[in-house]
Amino acid sequence: MELSPEWVVGFVDGEGCFHVSILRHPEMVAGYQVLPQFVVVQHKRDIQILYALKRFFRCGVVRVNHGDRYSYRVRKLEHLEKICDFFMKHPLKTKKHIDFRKFRKIVLLMKEKKHLTKEGLKEVIEIAMEMNTSERPSLEKIKKDLGNG
Amino acid sequence: MELSPEWVVGFVDGEGCFHVSILRHPEMVAGYQVLPQFVVVQHKRDIQILYALKRFFRCGVVRVNHGDRYSYRVRKLEHLEKICDFFMKHPLKTKKHIDFRKFRKIVLLMKEKKHLTKEGLKEVIEIAMEMNTSERPSLEKIKKDLGNG
Repeated sequence: MELSPEWVVGFVDGEGCFHVSILRHPEMVAGYQVLPQFVVVQHKRDIQILYALKRFFRCGVVRVNHGDRYSYRVRKLEHLEKICDFFMKHPLKTKKHIDFRKFRKIVLLMKEKKHLTKEGLKEVIEIAMEMNTSERPSLEKIKKDLGNG
Repeated sequence: MELSPEWVVGFVDGEGCFHVSILRHPEMVAGYQVLPQFVVVQHKRDIQILYALKRFFRCGVVRVNHGDRYSYRVRKLEHLEKICDFFMKHPLKTKKHIDFRKFRKIVLLMKEKKHLTKEGLKEVIEIAMEMNTSERPSLEKIKKDLGNG
């Protein structure tokens, strides 16, 4: 199955997700790990679409998600940069592009290793809070843990 | 906002729905009304996408769906024919194309007014049962009501 860039944009406008997790990780300098990921979830009957996305972007993995749902997932920073470059060149048309722009900001901060300092991490968390509003309380807590330093 | 055919296919592969309802309607010869519809539902923040689809297909309406969700909906038979022509020319890539082909069969049967006879209506119900599996029990019941005539 051959995908066109415009089809991919339309499909991701519907089904794609740009998400940033902030996870406790005592070995990291700032005590937390930043985990941005681009994910598309489908019922297993459409697993071939997920593999077509993997071939299209030439990165990422297809994994079981929950029950009979599978996900195409990109986590490696260098690969997320490729994903971001694609969606800068082929913009999303739904309001998802707002989340995407915030996601990209975080990816670029990580590329500059800003997230490894408390200051930079707080900046990342501020952006993530605007994206993942349902996780705002836990992100607020992490920000508080990081102190005013 | 200008939509391209390929973007529309990708978005509908993700968010579109081809659905056929069979409703009791004593004034119809066979006692039931066949109501096929093409629907795309979005949160109100993306209502402009629904209006863009309406402009793209040059038919259909945008209406409130549930709470803060809106739908773009096409119900008129002549307009559904246009929608079907589009997706025949620009095929869906997910398994949704299987539902679409069944949906189109029903639209074509209706164009020939087959659904106005008991025989034709039973044929429509048979196809609808394969599409809307969750509604199979109520469709089975209607089929039984129609008898073996």
